[in-house]
Amino acid sequence: MVNVGIIGGAGYTAGELLRILVWHPTVNIAFVQSTSHAGHPITDVHKDLLGDTNLVFGEADYSAVDVIFICSGHGKTKAFLEQSNLPNDLYIIDLSTDYRPKNNDGDFVYGLPELNKESIETASRIANPGCFATCIELGLLPLAEEKQLSEEIHVNAITGSTGAGQNPTVTSHFSWKNNNVAVYKAFTHQHLAEITESVLQLQPDYSKAINFIPVRGNFSRGIMATVYTDCEWSLEEAKEKYQSYYSEHPFVSISNVIPDVKQVVNTNKCVLYLEKHGDKLMIVSVIDNLLKGASGQAVQNMNIMFGLNEKEGLGLKPVGF
Amino acid sequence: MVNVGIIGGAGYTAGELLRILVWHPTVNIAFVQSTSHAGHPITDVHKDLLGDTNLVFGEADYSAVDVIFICSGHGKTKAFLEQSNLPNDLYIIDLSTDYRPKNNDGDFVYGLPELNKESIETASRIANPGCFATCIELGLLPLAEEKQLSEEIHVNAITGSTGAGQNPTVTSHFSWKNNNVAVYKAFTHQHLAEITESVLQLQPDYSKAINFIPVRGNFSRGIMATVYTDCEWSLEEAKEKYQSYYSEHPFVSISNVIPDVKQVVNTNKCVLYLEKHGDKLMIVSVIDNLLKGASGQAVQNMNIMFGLNEKEGLGLKPVGF
Amino acid sequence: MVNVGIIGGAGYTAGELLRILVWHPTVNIAFVQSTSHAGHPITDVHKDLLGDTNLVFGEADYSAVDVIFICSGHGKTKAFLEQSNLPNDLYIIDLSTDYRPKNNDGDFVYGLPELNKESIETASRIANPGCFATCIELGLLPLAEEKQLSEEIHVNAITGSTGAGQNPTVTSHFSWKNNNVAVYKAFTHQHLAEITESVLQLQPDYSKAINFIPVRGNFSRGIMATVYTDCEWSLEEAKEKYQSYYSEHPFVSISNVIPDVKQVVNTNKCVLYLEKHGDKLMIVSVIDNLLKGASGQAVQNMNIMFGLNEKEGLGLKPVGF
Amino acid sequence: MVNVGIIGGAGYTAGELLRILVWHPTVNIAFVQSTSHAGHPITDVHKDLLGDTNLVFGEADYSAVDVIFICSGHGKTKAFLEQSNLPNDLYIIDLSTDYRPKNNDGDFVYGLPELNKESIETASRIANPGCFATCIELGLLPLAEEKQLSEEIHVNAITGSTGAGQNPTVTSHFSWKNNNVAVYKAFTHQHLAEITESVLQLQPDYSKAINFIPVRGNFSRGIMATVYTDCEWSLEEAKEKYQSYYSEHPFVSISNVIPDVKQVVNTNKCVLYLEKHGDKLMIVSVIDNLLKGASGQAVQNMNIMFGLNEKEGLGLKPVGF
Repeated sequence: MVNVGIIGGAGYTAGELLRILVWHPTVNIAFVQSTSHAGHPITDVHKDLLGDTNLVFGEADYSAVDVIFICSGHGKTKAFLEQSNLPNDLYIIDLSTDYRPKNNDGDFVYGLPELNKESIETASRIANPGCFATCIELGLLPLAEEKQLSEEIHVNAITGSTGAGQNPTVTSHFSWKNNNVAVYKAFTHQHLAEITESVLQLQPDYSKAINFIPVRGNFSRGIMATVYTDCEWSLEEAKEKYQSYYSEHPFVSISNVIPDVKQVVNTNKCVLYLEKHGDKLMIVSVIDNLLKGASGQAVQNMNIMFGLNEKEGLGLKPVGF
Repeated sequence: MVNVGIIGGAGYTAGELLRILVWHPTVNIAFVQSTSHAGHPITDVHKDLLGDTNLVFGEADYSAVDVIFICSGHGKTKAFLEQSNLPNDLYIIDLSTDYRPKNNDGDFVYGLPELNKESIETASRIANPGCFATCIELGLLPLAEEKQLSEEIHVNAITGSTGAGQNPTVTSHFSWKNNNVAVYKAFTHQHLAEITESVLQLQPDYSKAINFIPVRGNFSRGIMATVYTDCEWSLEEAKEKYQSYYSEHPFVSISNVIPDVKQVVNTNKCVLYLEKHGDKLMIVSVIDNLLKGASGQAVQNMNIMFGLNEKEGLGLKPVGF
Repeated sequence: MVNVGIIGGAGYTAGELLRILVWHPTVNIAFVQSTSHAGHPITDVHKDLLGDTNLVFGEADYSAVDVIFICSGHGKTKAFLEQSNLPNDLYIIDLSTDYRPKNNDGDFVYGLPELNKESIETASRIANPGCFATCIELGLLPLAEEKQLSEEIHVNAITGSTGAGQNPTVTSHFSWKNNNVAVYKAFTHQHLAEITESVLQLQPDYSKAINFIPVRGNFSRGIMATVYTDCEWSLEEAKEKYQSYYSEHPFVSISNVIPDVKQVVNTNKCVLYLEKHGDKLMIVSVIDNLLKGASGQAVQNMNIMFGLNEKEGLGLKPVGF
Repeated sequence: MVNVGIIGGAGYTAGELLRILVWHPTVNIAFVQSTSHAGHPITDVHKDLLGDTNLVFGEADYSAVDVIFICSGHGKTKAFLEQSNLPNDLYIIDLSTDYRPKNNDGDFVYGLPELNKESIETASRIANPGCFATCIELGLLPLAEEKQLSEEIHVNAITGSTGAGQNPTVTSHFSWKNNNVAVYKAFTHQHLAEITESVLQLQPDYSKAINFIPVRGNFSRGIMATVYTDCEWSLEEAKEKYQSYYSEHPFVSISNVIPDVKQVVNTNKCVLYLEKHGDKLMIVSVIDNLLKGASGQAVQNMNIMFGLNEKEGLGLKPVGF
């Protein structure tokens, strides 16, 4: 049994962790820390867990756990680690951006299992990747592994609303977002840094631009990225290389038909699809931003760190519709 | 030309007034008052008017207008009237709840043209009805007119998100509301007061309950109310009575097939539909909450007050889809 | 291990069964019969199962299974049973309406565990309840159990689009349904028969009308029913009675706050909520129409029939958003 | 008064024409031809027009009209013209793809007013542009006019469901499309031909690829295209050039803030927005696919052909929400 604690238990990614972990067969949830909701049942905030758990938000007790998931929000983990007197042997999985850069000062391993599984197996601290980053990197890794990247990469990715968190804003207002789409942070999205680092980890000589246009979609969950770049492989070669690259990675599938984003919603899966047009290879990549793009991947990392089956607790029923 | 001013120009109902009035052939918009946005183009807030108008939010100038629309929000009109030194001959159309009760202390006429057209023609102050109230009253007026109400009335009405205004809240958050519905204020909604008063205006002896369950719908615009009560009329009689009641009211139609709410979205229309089951007459009523339920009806009232064609400026293209 | 077969494997309820059963720890899926798709991978139709299963649509082999789920559609089960030479000891769970009436000619037990758990334990043939019926009956059973029903019952229930199946029609077209709602089959919906029978099973003397207005909602999954009727209980008494009635039924919870439909989406749960207004008790009931309203309940019935834990394989991660 | 007839009156684009033309001050709708619905009120099909018109579907009477709009569907216009004995002086506006190629055999002028206004003024036959084509071309015309195109162009455009017409299909089914997005016809969409021709009309030497990925969006109306390519202009220069190019075109606006697609829904407007990132100029372009992308543009063309104010009848209230 792995004893886990959650820091910052009232947010979206914490809620999603709880939805997974209450059913995880080898996990015991020892505490769900929340400053703002301490003393209240977690079902006051995560109402859909009514009937599934009687957990109450409380204080952190590090002596009771093997691992903590930090869900406090971007920019807060570093201060948290400095202020908390954490046991040396406590495992940490951080869902924020703070320690994702390779040269972080905390010995955090970038927790994309399809890139770094061996390092994750022996790591005690994981920086869980970003949602856009996960979706796009999974589309590019086989190309970088084979040093096939030579020209600029063109990415357009549309994300569900939960990617922006629970804070109510103008663009999270239903009356605005319903039936609506809009571009944001074009060419400048903060996930470009980790995408670039992951590509360079496999193909250090790649030096062209990755042009990335993020789009706010009018759905709750999911990301669909379309990626294309010049590639010498035929479509058949490309499919073989992708199949081969992901053959040991149970959450990534190559589809022979165009995938849609809902196909992976409420699962930890990534579905990839390839087309070749002239010199261009197009990759479509779909994930659930809260699962493979956040909390599901965090549990996948935990499974790997603790020597469990990578899929344990992640056999999730897709929503389908 | 009617010169109009808008008080509280940055909210939803003001935006909707502007969308109508910029194209109204006999209206000149003299000012759009907003404290928070003074000095800025109205298209900074109501972006969809880009290209349609160069109006700028500013201060009120009562000497320049024949009528003002007050869009300040519920509970604020009374204080506004006391603090502002309004000219005696200024016409006022108030979109808040403040002066809707019959025994209001401001000589406001309840501005439902299908109930009070003659009074509106000679009124200088109008309390514009609520959105749920308009939708439900239009379903009940012919019954009350003919004193047919005898038993309890059962109402369920589902509303679009714009009915709750632009303030971001938990239940206006897209991630919550998307694909979601929920009940609120069952049996206690504040519009029950005006519904009851309008029914009693036509049938003063009616004394049974009006049971009203409002529902938050996951769409932006529109209200659909289903209403039923015991009724001695046959379906044919009922249709005739409804046709007859609304024969001089250009915005209300009786449909022979079940209407859907999108059929009236972006119009000032109300579509009614009748079925008879045993002793029960069921009425389905659909409107656009921001138009016939708010700003469209306000313009309709203005047209009547100023002797214009009731439909002027309200020949609106339905959204259709 | 329970060996199961699915008849009519290409439809919505079959897909939903598969999404559950591929992860059910004590189930082996022996065959998924489909006439139209025989020989094709089930992921050609149920694409979201890509990576989860390699099952192929094929022919039925009754000697290989302990139980079959019949998902052929309403009105087809009777003919199927006559034409198929089924083994006498084969268990059957039928998802159609065909054998739901109490006086059916096939010894089918109405499979609502919260009403008939003991009968289900010893049954070999189950008629799985309708989705609206399940949602509404769960709201009424404690009242009927205590013989508290005395006056008419008023029900309004809004359903997700999957309730209408996968056949494309005018009202299933996205361009019509998006942002839209409409009434259908008011006072005449076919589920009224089974609702009435279940109520009468517990309170045989109840003789008033159940007025039921179904509404097509613009969401994919879920049903929310609002039910009210006269009731002498105080709110506190009512809550106690409901808590008590469902104390042994793990999928039904009583909420202290207003539930929303998304709270139960992708789960087998029913959440009930009570308010008292004057003489009226209002019950809000929410379920996922494809799970507690169809395939989840079918698996729950299977679990009970085979002596498994009622919740086995039904610890489903809610979609949350 | 312009007397108009509509051929193929039951489809989406015909419905949208009717929604505009019933309020157009100088148009008389002489007939609405439909084979399948002849003899029935047009409100049987276009229900949202209930109360706005009593028109009945009927046969075409070419002697009664000055212009016909052909809404029969792609690939049917040529046969229609051959089979119909149309008067020589009858004006034709065809909404299909059939005569959009420059070298068409029918003397049709490509009806994009922002490209071909002078030709349209004297044309008697107009091939109305495609929806994606309109949205993307309006983003590119100022660049082509100034011969600034030198490198490949990258386009991603997401469209509302009405772009696919009213025929019910798997991907138009609400249960599939709700909360879902998917790519289709990447790099091969049929509108690439007219986009390329329009670009070459202004900059004949451009010879690089236009890479276009279309996406099915989960909304009813609207297209948002993001377009980028290398450009030597500074952002300020680009804005000036775009402002200048569209200075005489009343339906195109340059926005200083990121536009969203709903901003133009239910209007004939196109809003453009520019950003510069390194060598890349990004253009965001939004239109309503049924209006500026189809029927609104058709009316705009009619206005120009008949010497009316280009905006007549097209002062449409935006839906806003």
